[in-house]
Amino acid sequence: MKNICYAQSGGPTAVINESARAVIETAKRYPNDFNKVYAGLHGITGILNEALIDTYAEPEEHIRGLRHTPAAAFGSCRHKLKDIATHRDEYLRLLEVFDAHDIGYFLYNGGGDSQDTAYKISQISHSLGYDLKCIGIPKTIDNDLPFTDCSPGFASAGKYLATSIREAGLDLESMASSSTRVFIMETMGRHTGWLAAASGLAQNHVHPEPHIILFPEIPFVHDKFYAKVEDCLKRWGSCAISVSEGILNVDGKHILETTEMDDFGHSQLGGIAPIIAGLVKQHLNVKTHWAVPDYCQRAARHLVSQVDLDHAYAVGKAAVEFLRAGKHGIMPIIVRDSSSPYRWHIGEADLANIANQEKFLPRDYIDAQGFHITDACREYLSPLIQGEEPPVFSDGLPAYVRLHKKLVDKKL
Amino acid sequence: MKNICYAQSGGPTAVINESARAVIETAKRYPNDFNKVYAGLHGITGILNEALIDTYAEPEEHIRGLRHTPAAAFGSCRHKLKDIATHRDEYLRLLEVFDAHDIGYFLYNGGGDSQDTAYKISQISHSLGYDLKCIGIPKTIDNDLPFTDCSPGFASAGKYLATSIREAGLDLESMASSSTRVFIMETMGRHTGWLAAASGLAQNHVHPEPHIILFPEIPFVHDKFYAKVEDCLKRWGSCAISVSEGILNVDGKHILETTEMDDFGHSQLGGIAPIIAGLVKQHLNVKTHWAVPDYCQRAARHLVSQVDLDHAYAVGKAAVEFLRAGKHGIMPIIVRDSSSPYRWHIGEADLANIANQEKFLPRDYIDAQGFHITDACREYLSPLIQGEEPPVFSDGLPAYVRLHKKLVDKKL
Repeated sequence: MKNICYAQSGGPTAVINESARAVIETAKRYPNDFNKVYAGLHGITGILNEALIDTYAEPEEHIRGLRHTPAAAFGSCRHKLKDIATHRDEYLRLLEVFDAHDIGYFLYNGGGDSQDTAYKISQISHSLGYDLKCIGIPKTIDNDLPFTDCSPGFASAGKYLATSIREAGLDLESMASSSTRVFIMETMGRHTGWLAAASGLAQNHVHPEPHIILFPEIPFVHDKFYAKVEDCLKRWGSCAISVSEGILNVDGKHILETTEMDDFGHSQLGGIAPIIAGLVKQHLNVKTHWAVPDYCQRAARHLVSQVDLDHAYAVGKAAVEFLRAGKHGIMPIIVRDSSSPYRWHIGEADLANIANQEKFLPRDYIDAQGFHITDACREYLSPLIQGEEPPVFSDGLPAYVRLHKKLVDKKL
Repeated sequence: MKNICYAQSGGPTAVINESARAVIETAKRYPNDFNKVYAGLHGITGILNEALIDTYAEPEEHIRGLRHTPAAAFGSCRHKLKDIATHRDEYLRLLEVFDAHDIGYFLYNGGGDSQDTAYKISQISHSLGYDLKCIGIPKTIDNDLPFTDCSPGFASAGKYLATSIREAGLDLESMASSSTRVFIMETMGRHTGWLAAASGLAQNHVHPEPHIILFPEIPFVHDKFYAKVEDCLKRWGSCAISVSEGILNVDGKHILETTEMDDFGHSQLGGIAPIIAGLVKQHLNVKTHWAVPDYCQRAARHLVSQVDLDHAYAVGKAAVEFLRAGKHGIMPIIVRDSSSPYRWHIGEADLANIANQEKFLPRDYIDAQGFHITDACREYLSPLIQGEEPPVFSDGLPAYVRLHKKLVDKKL
C-alpha cells in the first residue's frame, strides 16, 4: 500500500486548504487503498529537499480547521520545474524521494504551471517505469485555467473585491460633493480580467459602483477613459473604478512600462491604481483616492463564497476518488449544469491538454464600450459568489489554524 | 415643539449610520419633546444650502438598515466653519436656516473639527439670543478625540486591519521560502498611531503577524528599521509590517516629503506602503509586496466590531436624551469602568474643552524598541474589537441601504 504525496503550489487562496482537507479526509476513509498522506513543506521544493509533512500526525481539529484557514497551510512555492530534456536530474530527484517514502500517488494543487509540472512528472515516471499516478487539483484566483468552469479560490477573491468596491464606493459617494470624487481599486489578474469582472457584480439597481472596470482584455485608451470618467462624474457625482493590475495599452504594453517614470515613478514598485489616480488627477483635476488590496484579496478567509469552499472540497475529494478508481494523468474540473438554479458536478480534463493555456474573459462578457461586464458575464459569475461561511472568531479576530507540520524522518 | 437637525461630518466610518439611527429612533420615542429629525444633505454644507432631509419620511426598514450600512448615509462633507470674527455671515446663514425650519437642536456627528464647529455654533447662537441647543456626537476612525475612552468607528476599522494583516501575513509566510518575504500594509491615522496599533492585536501566541508596526508617535530611523526587519527575517523567515500613513522622521517631517522623488516619485500620489517597500527592497534586497486598504478600512461594514456598533448607538441615543434632560454644549463620551470584563457607560464632556486636542498613543502603549504594542495597549484595545454582526447578504453581497433622502421644502 502506497502513500499519497500532496503539494500546494503558487499563490495561495482563501480556500486552497479546503482542498487539502478533502484530500486527507477522503484518503483516511480508504485505509485499505492508501497508507498515509504526506504533504510537501513549501510545495515541490519540500519534496526536492525531502521535507515531507506527515498529515496524519496532525490533530483532527487542525485538519477540520483547514476549512476556515486561508493561505497555504503546508507552505507553497514558486518553483517551476524546467524542461525534462535539460533538467532531468530534478525529475530524477523527485522520483528518488517518492521511492524512498513509498509514494505511489502525487496530487499537485495549483494553477496552470502546476498542472504542466504534474503532467511532466507523470510522463517521466512512466518513461522510467516508476509507478506514480499523478493528478492535478485546480486552484487559482485568476480563474484562467482551461476546461474547468471556474477555479477554486477565484470566487472568494471576487466576492471580497465586489464587497470592497461597494463599500468604498458608498464612502466615496457620501463625501464626493466636497472631497474625493474618483476612487480606484486595483485587482489582481496579471493577464486576465476575471477578478476585475467579479468586482462588477457590486453594480445593481441600488448601487452604481463600480462605475468603470478596466480589463487587460481591452486596450487602455487614455482619452476614451477620461471621457468615461467625466460622464460618470456628471451623472453620479463620483466615480469608483476597478482596475486590473494587468491592463495594457493599444500596443499590448503594460501601462506600468509605458507611463513616464518622470511623471509618477512607480515602475519599479508596482501599483497600477496610483498610476491611474495620478492620470485622472492630471487630466481631470479632481481629487482621487486609491486602494491596492494585494494579498488581502486572496487571503480574506473572513469573507469567502460558500460555493467556492464547496468547489475546493469537491476537487480535492475527487482527486483521491479518481486515484481509487485507477484514474490518473487528469485534473478534476467543475462542470456547470445550469446557472439558475446553479447546478454543477465534477468532471475531468486530461493534464496533457492543460499546459500553457489561459482562459481569457470572452469578449461578450465585456460591454460594447469596454468599461463594464454584460448580463452574460453576470449569469456566469453570480452563482459562484453565493453563500457565506465566516470562520470562528476568537478574541475578536478570526481563529486560524497553524499546523504542527511534523516532518517524516529523512531516508536519503 | 422644535425640530432636531442632525448632520454627519468628515470621513465616514462603518458605524456612523448607527449613531444616526439612534438619534432618529430615540427622538421618535418622544413625540411630545421633538417634532422631527432633519438631516443635512452632505453635512453642514446641506444646512447652508437649505438642503434638509426629512428623516421621518424615510421607510422604517431604511432606518433599521442603517445599522448594517457603512459610509455616511445622509452624505458628509469636509467643510470647516472658519473663525466667527471673520466669517460671521456663514454662522448667521446657519441660524437663518435653523430658524426657517423651526430647528431648536443641532446634533453634529464627527471628529475634533466638528466638535469645535458645534461649540462655535452653540456660542454664537447664545450670543445672538437664538435658542439653539448643540450637542456633538463623537465619530472618528482615528480615535484621537479627547475625553472619550474611544471613538465610534475606530474599533471596526481596527478589527478589519488586524484581520487583514493576520490573513495577508499567513499568505506571505506560506510563500516566503521562494517568493515575497516582506509585506507592508498601510493604515490610516494621519497624526496618531491608533489604527496601526489596533492591527497589532493580530499578534498572539499562534500568529507572529504583524512583526513590526511603524507609528507616527515614534520617529522613523532607517537603520534601526532595516535591522529590525532583518531580525524578523532571520527569526520568522518573513516579515509583515503595519505602517501608519503618518510616520515621521526624526525631524518631525513626513516620510513622503523626505524621500527623494528621484528614488520613488510618490510624493504627489500618497502611499507610504510602496515607499517603505521600495526602501526595504533597496536596502535588504528581498522581494516585497504592499497593500493600501485606504477607504476600504473605514467602510468595511462586512467586518465590524459589535462593541463599536453598540457604542455608536449609545452616543446617538444619549445625545437625544441629553437634550430631553435640558443638557447641551456637550458631547456624550464612552467611559470605561473595567477592561476585563469590559464594562462601560455614557458620560459627557464639555464641547468647550474638546477643540484642537488630539489624543496620541501613550508612550507606554508602544514597546521599548518602538516597533510594537505593549500589554497595556492590548488591554485597552482588545475589548473594543469584540463581537461580530455581519450585514444581511443578498445575492452573495452585503445588502446596504440607500436612503430616499426626501428633502424638506425650502423656505428661504
